[in-house]
Amino acid sequence: MRITIGEFLISRLKQIGVTEIIGVPGDFNLNFLEQVNEAEGIRFIGTCNELNAAYAADGYARSRGVAALLTTYGVGELSALNGIAGAAAEHVPLVSLAGAPPLYATEDRYDLHHTMADGNFRNMLDSIGQFTATAVRLTPMNAVVEIDRALHTCLREKRPVHLQLPSDISHLCVEAPDTDFDLTLPGSDPERLESAASRVLELFDAAQRPVILADLDADRHGFVPALQAFAEKTGTPYAHLNSGKGVLDEHHPLFLGTYNGAGSAPAVKAAIEQADFLITTTPRFIEANSGGFTHALPETTLDFGDQHVSIGKEHFIGITVLELLDLLLERVPAGNSQVAAAPAASISEPWEVQAGAELTQERLWPRLARFLREDDVVIAEAGTSSIGLGPHPLPTGTRYINSGIWGSIGFTLPATLGSQLAEPGRRHILFIGDGSFQMTAQELSTILRQNLKPIIVLLNNRGYTIERLILGMDAEYNDIQNWSFSQLPRIFHPDTSMRSHQARTEGELEEALADIEESEDGAFLELHLDPKDAPAGLKTFGPMTADFDFGPRGPRNP
Amino acid sequence: MRITIGEFLISRLKQIGVTEIIGVPGDFNLNFLEQVNEAEGIRFIGTCNELNAAYAADGYARSRGVAALLTTYGVGELSALNGIAGAAAEHVPLVSLAGAPPLYATEDRYDLHHTMADGNFRNMLDSIGQFTATAVRLTPMNAVVEIDRALHTCLREKRPVHLQLPSDISHLCVEAPDTDFDLTLPGSDPERLESAASRVLELFDAAQRPVILADLDADRHGFVPALQAFAEKTGTPYAHLNSGKGVLDEHHPLFLGTYNGAGSAPAVKAAIEQADFLITTTPRFIEANSGGFTHALPETTLDFGDQHVSIGKEHFIGITVLELLDLLLERVPAGNSQVAAAPAASISEPWEVQAGAELTQERLWPRLARFLREDDVVIAEAGTSSIGLGPHPLPTGTRYINSGIWGSIGFTLPATLGSQLAEPGRRHILFIGDGSFQMTAQELSTILRQNLKPIIVLLNNRGYTIERLILGMDAEYNDIQNWSFSQLPRIFHPDTSMRSHQARTEGELEEALADIEESEDGAFLELHLDPKDAPAGLKTFGPMTADFDFGPRGPRNP
Repeated sequence: MRITIGEFLISRLKQIGVTEIIGVPGDFNLNFLEQVNEAEGIRFIGTCNELNAAYAADGYARSRGVAALLTTYGVGELSALNGIAGAAAEHVPLVSLAGAPPLYATEDRYDLHHTMADGNFRNMLDSIGQFTATAVRLTPMNAVVEIDRALHTCLREKRPVHLQLPSDISHLCVEAPDTDFDLTLPGSDPERLESAASRVLELFDAAQRPVILADLDADRHGFVPALQAFAEKTGTPYAHLNSGKGVLDEHHPLFLGTYNGAGSAPAVKAAIEQADFLITTTPRFIEANSGGFTHALPETTLDFGDQHVSIGKEHFIGITVLELLDLLLERVPAGNSQVAAAPAASISEPWEVQAGAELTQERLWPRLARFLREDDVVIAEAGTSSIGLGPHPLPTGTRYINSGIWGSIGFTLPATLGSQLAEPGRRHILFIGDGSFQMTAQELSTILRQNLKPIIVLLNNRGYTIERLILGMDAEYNDIQNWSFSQLPRIFHPDTSMRSHQARTEGELEEALADIEESEDGAFLELHLDPKDAPAGLKTFGPMTADFDFGPRGPRNP
Repeated sequence: MRITIGEFLISRLKQIGVTEIIGVPGDFNLNFLEQVNEAEGIRFIGTCNELNAAYAADGYARSRGVAALLTTYGVGELSALNGIAGAAAEHVPLVSLAGAPPLYATEDRYDLHHTMADGNFRNMLDSIGQFTATAVRLTPMNAVVEIDRALHTCLREKRPVHLQLPSDISHLCVEAPDTDFDLTLPGSDPERLESAASRVLELFDAAQRPVILADLDADRHGFVPALQAFAEKTGTPYAHLNSGKGVLDEHHPLFLGTYNGAGSAPAVKAAIEQADFLITTTPRFIEANSGGFTHALPETTLDFGDQHVSIGKEHFIGITVLELLDLLLERVPAGNSQVAAAPAASISEPWEVQAGAELTQERLWPRLARFLREDDVVIAEAGTSSIGLGPHPLPTGTRYINSGIWGSIGFTLPATLGSQLAEPGRRHILFIGDGSFQMTAQELSTILRQNLKPIIVLLNNRGYTIERLILGMDAEYNDIQNWSFSQLPRIFHPDTSMRSHQARTEGELEEALADIEESEDGAFLELHLDPKDAPAGLKTFGPMTADFDFGPRGPRNP
């Protein structure tokens, strides 16, 4: 069929499940925005800036499975790059589109605004391409092939892809297939699949103490339903890395807790390290999820990649793990695990309020964990929030969004916008510190403009507390300006129904939470905490990080 | 002498004139921040996020001659990249420093936070290096050489440079020279210098209608005093490109106005295009400063590069233009120009207020231009502000900061922060639109935190008006959320003495300006303007840009 390049791109985005394109207009993408406006079933959501748009698209993709970002050439796409790179690090499929200068001007090497004015039109692709599975400029001749290839790559590899759309080609007609986008993968080689299944079942059958250790790729590659079912059918206990928090059901008797090398609870450490058969999902051990690289996995570890399985040095390629998991689930005998999991710390134990007591990190997080409900979307900023919430099991069905690998602060406020655009029917609760909030604060405006109703819990502890714990406990460089945070909803949207609350004591917190629980208008809850107070996990993480980062000659907190 | 790498770097920054390092702390740079804290005569200024820090550093460098930016690995340096690239496009010397993972972990390819967790430690340098004159990771063995080389390159080429400082090497001692940093250039080849001078003087002597056309490189390379003196001694009239606005004295009888191809005033167009000897300073013609590439320079054009002079196909290399300019100024006979410049539209003509009239773009800019004083620093955001202010001559001694090539909106608010840190004694006046302001709004907080007192004129016209004029005059994608902007100073700093004003009519504007004129507390002046109103220049720029960008098949405003 004959179709304009812009319309073809829009139709493909719709076919993969995108109903919102998030971004910022710029002269090179305005004509594409006109095409978006004319299309049914898809709309543009403008954010205040491009980095925030990229973060929002990341959040959208975590909940929807894929997202589309739209920026303009140079100034826009580079502003978004940290967010695109974050999606790469966190294995999030993101289709990044940038309106680009007209193709004729590109080919003739014009000096243009939003360029170095030196005729170089490769530098943006070369820069951004460091962090994407593909980065390509569309032309009328390559557009159909490259769009389909890019989307296939994005969804297959769970990585961002970047497409530059020259502003003068979007309205040109090309011949394109009239069939829907097809993500079918070639499927497994039957012999390899059968061999892998037999080998896994053989090892599993021989195991006395099998355990599953989940990391985020289990979520990204869609393993979770089969993996959870496998654990439940076989009675195999499971843990996660903190970068894989929320992937498997934490409110389940088989859930052990978080494995963090030497920083693990003893029972979790023992279960993982003394397992005689450990199942992993491509764990990536960094300082922050391995107790400073003190992890020690057992010799017999089975790793599910996306398109292969490894058992020590034995590799099975040419298989899709989803097919393998289905086969294993069908064939594995029920209940062969001999080990009963230690029950995780429960969030259903009653909570005794100390009404007059000032808020402390130690008592805040168990209380906030009890505020969460099944099927909430919980977003926790890197640092105090994710470390504070980390040890507390999430209710069944919770979607948990954090940035455990990339750890870019400021990510979560726009990510909340994006996730709630993707799943407006679910309650969203964001935990974010004041320093992180200031990074991307203007996106609260877009949340309100879109009439979304998240519950935003802002921890005001007057600076970068995670950094205080690493170095500079009292240093001015870790301080930030103290804003009248709770007035911001009304500044950004004078008619907002979002209610603001502040709490300094447990009693005030209870009142606020009770009010928030009853309301459906979302909330902005500012909690005042001591700048030097930190969750237990952060108190060990800080000095460990200083040792790791600064070496024997470097400084330490007194 | 033996000195730690961090202290050596700090001493070099001080020697080139940096007294403020602008940035955001992160675990990989905290130890360097400790060293900054311990040093005399230099301090750290924390901003809300890294892009804003880069913009602020750019503004600082425009006023101080050079600036230092400090970010952390990955998340920080990539967030800053659009600002670094902007400095590259605008030829601004910027020393970008990023705290990086410890060297041993880099060499051993550890999986780390703020990385892709894949052992790749080249991707950041390769990405950022697209836009810097050099991008290098420091080691104990290369640090002394690379720091001096990078600073030399930065100051010589007027481009950003990027240095990654691994977190475990900053406190290690190395042997370093105890002499101050030396920027001496080799100087000109005497024969080439003499030949160039003779040839230029010969052509100049033969010319009947010489004219100077300045672009921003005249400022960056320090040509301005000599060039202005040359014009005045010889009576040579001069014009600028809008990207070179403010470079030469606009309040001078020799000043012709802005050359903008077919979009120029007739007298300017004639003077430039019919000159029989045109002197340029590496002009870069983009859509926005050439009347859509309708510029037509005369055949005999002399171009002053930084380290060469070109006259048509005749090139003189191996000379420094500063030496050549000194020689020309000494030798050129006085007052040989036969052409008297047409006087530019004066800003000293009296202004008649129409007190009840609503503000219009047509009358706003001539009024605001009259508010400017000699030696002000004037910062004009890309779009309505720079186009509106463009035709109005600036008072003598004005420093004018804009982003005429890169055009990244949101730049100017942090740039105002940076410039005022660099020159706290000068009055700073910022003109910015609401859409641009929302990009980087949180940096108003840092301006107030640092007790700076700029006059911020916010044009609230409910969206991206420059884009409305290009496409989507009524489209929702060009709308933004309307904030209670004028309350922001008190939200960001409850004790601020900065006064907020709003004006919808000329009378209200006069009252506000009178109040601002008397005060030394800075001001936040919100002007309410019609979303579709635009300066005359924008009304022609919009459709021209649509033609250029969208081609014959693309859409146009009705």
